[in-house]
Amino acid sequence: MFRKLLSYDEAKLVLNQNYCAKPLGTERVNLSKAHGRVLAQNVVSSLDIPPFSRSTVDGYAIKAADSFGASEEQPVSFTFCGHVAIGEPPKAVVKQGLAAEIVTGAPLPEGADAVVMVEQTNRQGDTVYVHRPVSATENVMAAGSDIKKGETVLERGRFLGSREIGVLAAVGLVEVEVYLRPRVAILSTGAEVVAPGNPLPAGKIYDINAHTLSAAVTESGCESTNLGIVPDEKEELTKALQKALESSDAVITSGGVSVGPKDFTPNVVDSLGKPGVIISGVAVKPGKPITIAIVDNKPVFSLPGNPTSSLFMYRVFVHPVLAKLAGRPEEDLPKVCAVAAQKMFPARGRRTFVMVNLSYGKDGKLFVSPVPTGLSGAITTLSKADGFVEISEKQQFVDVGKEITVYLFGKLTKPKTS
Amino acid sequence: MFRKLLSYDEAKLVLNQNYCAKPLGTERVNLSKAHGRVLAQNVVSSLDIPPFSRSTVDGYAIKAADSFGASEEQPVSFTFCGHVAIGEPPKAVVKQGLAAEIVTGAPLPEGADAVVMVEQTNRQGDTVYVHRPVSATENVMAAGSDIKKGETVLERGRFLGSREIGVLAAVGLVEVEVYLRPRVAILSTGAEVVAPGNPLPAGKIYDINAHTLSAAVTESGCESTNLGIVPDEKEELTKALQKALESSDAVITSGGVSVGPKDFTPNVVDSLGKPGVIISGVAVKPGKPITIAIVDNKPVFSLPGNPTSSLFMYRVFVHPVLAKLAGRPEEDLPKVCAVAAQKMFPARGRRTFVMVNLSYGKDGKLFVSPVPTGLSGAITTLSKADGFVEISEKQQFVDVGKEITVYLFGKLTKPKTS
Repeated sequence: MFRKLLSYDEAKLVLNQNYCAKPLGTERVNLSKAHGRVLAQNVVSSLDIPPFSRSTVDGYAIKAADSFGASEEQPVSFTFCGHVAIGEPPKAVVKQGLAAEIVTGAPLPEGADAVVMVEQTNRQGDTVYVHRPVSATENVMAAGSDIKKGETVLERGRFLGSREIGVLAAVGLVEVEVYLRPRVAILSTGAEVVAPGNPLPAGKIYDINAHTLSAAVTESGCESTNLGIVPDEKEELTKALQKALESSDAVITSGGVSVGPKDFTPNVVDSLGKPGVIISGVAVKPGKPITIAIVDNKPVFSLPGNPTSSLFMYRVFVHPVLAKLAGRPEEDLPKVCAVAAQKMFPARGRRTFVMVNLSYGKDGKLFVSPVPTGLSGAITTLSKADGFVEISEKQQFVDVGKEITVYLFGKLTKPKTS
Repeated sequence: MFRKLLSYDEAKLVLNQNYCAKPLGTERVNLSKAHGRVLAQNVVSSLDIPPFSRSTVDGYAIKAADSFGASEEQPVSFTFCGHVAIGEPPKAVVKQGLAAEIVTGAPLPEGADAVVMVEQTNRQGDTVYVHRPVSATENVMAAGSDIKKGETVLERGRFLGSREIGVLAAVGLVEVEVYLRPRVAILSTGAEVVAPGNPLPAGKIYDINAHTLSAAVTESGCESTNLGIVPDEKEELTKALQKALESSDAVITSGGVSVGPKDFTPNVVDSLGKPGVIISGVAVKPGKPITIAIVDNKPVFSLPGNPTSSLFMYRVFVHPVLAKLAGRPEEDLPKVCAVAAQKMFPARGRRTFVMVNLSYGKDGKLFVSPVPTGLSGAITTLSKADGFVEISEKQQFVDVGKEITVYLFGKLTKPKTS
């Protein structure tokens, strides 16, 4: 265990060198439970989609060549040879000069190679007049034109949203192999925290982190278990961490990582297994005291007690690891370009993430400025922010008027006009 | 009931005039279940946050004025007057010339108005040397500086993500009032559809829509119930729809809305209650046959059988209504500007939504072009698309090289470079 403050880039490197985050295994789930999961198999279609050539309109199935020369004035006449219903194998056979009535989605009958729309026909008894020529394949969706039998329709690692669920249903799958959801245990430490809903004695504050981190873990595609508040006591903390490691794939603690006399979380974590603590403080703001350990190939993230720092470090260091454990595809945060409305400075020697707000100027330009409060310990700083900007530890400042990238916390909901 | 094809804008207007979508009621949920819900109350803090002035560093609590003139060469000496622990009311009282040892997060003791960082001090026995002057409030987070007692911290209608959960925990709430999740029933109609997992007889296709729509309903913040495939039979459809209306707040059917002889869904829906069908076909592409009814103040959306049309019409007409029923804040789809790499045409007289792909050109410009397949009935068209562009029914075409807005289906995951 070492106590050297790593740079942001070094910390990322050390983490990647000591721990290879990859999916934990797979399970089969029913299609109705697959939404929001990540595919752990390539999906190969065992059938053509559509399985047969289908009409895309209501009208008459004919041989296209028979309609040659048809016009409004000089319709070509066909002989009615039956009706093709949807969902049934067609009984009609379309020979030269014949026309079978067909509805949208019904299978093209044998012999036909096109469908003329009902609006371009006129039927009198068993005679069907066609007023416009059609070309072969017109108004027909050919068998296999959407998906071919044997085609890979979705690849391993694909996130299953509503559109992907549709592809699975199309090829008739009712079960699918997905990556296991990582189980993440969350512990709060510190003599000052009390669970919300209880009375608040003097000198105490409510435990925010257990709740924000639990919600964030869900957003990363994992299952969270809140193990509650652990007293500032070495033996109890050791026991709680051992239990957490036994029952989960990753552990997150918050609090107890500053340099106060009771901040012994890093020592306890380090004693639990090998290699132990690999990162002990990172030159970032907010979140400097973050400690990361690997214990018997499970990551243990010890985040600061400060709720903004804690949730922000989650986003920067924890989320990428958990997303990989969950098998999720790598995703950029949504971002926009905006013009700095204020000068912004990095904390000396630290990669600095400034929580910011966006607003439109009168000229329609998008401007960015730090969240007014400026209290780094404030939970409201984070909840009021639209996003953040990243300033290098080597940069002096971001000047007014400079265009910079703003990473967004969510969908941009119409920033206010100033 | 009328059969006039409405324009896209008219259809939106008719829907809004006939149905006012608003939240269906509220319920109290535990903080641990509140993530992803929508707040139905203003949250007013019953306490100051932090509840007491706290030190933001490890160091010594002093009267700032006492440190005046301190320097590396000429430290000012203070007399140690005790330790302030975290989570406990301080026992020390800081009078002139005294310094109380304090840890990050601990309450500022009586008499002190600033904290000097431990790195800027040097202690020998009961004497504390301070090497730098501090100003009043330095390294102190004042009581109520984050949230003031009586302040409204979150407003009705706010979506509860991890950051908002943090604010609720901070003010000590363990239960919160949220809007009810609307219950949405989903029915598939059509003689041609078979549930995935079953063998596929000739002329049949798998039911895609029940699965895509169910996933989409979840994404809109509602609870979906899949009532399965209803045979193409008037009495059965009537019974199924009545049951659906009894047990849910909105109903979605798919299939059976074209003009085929068995497409009687609109007639059945219209017979169930007043005002009945208000929209019967819209001049859009894809999705023209969409039918919308209001039955005893519940919306019934009858979407086309074609899975791309169906899911796309869901996004355009159904999602906005369900999101309002769920109390969700209005949200723009994420969008980017891109240059048209191909000429794109609207279908004649119809508001046209073209499914598109994005790619970066060699010059770093973002280009947009229609999804190659171009089969509007193809489920793969939608699953392969990065987003869509909207072309007005009055526009002739979008020319190559023109910059246009692309609405994205999800987060943009690094478009390929061509």
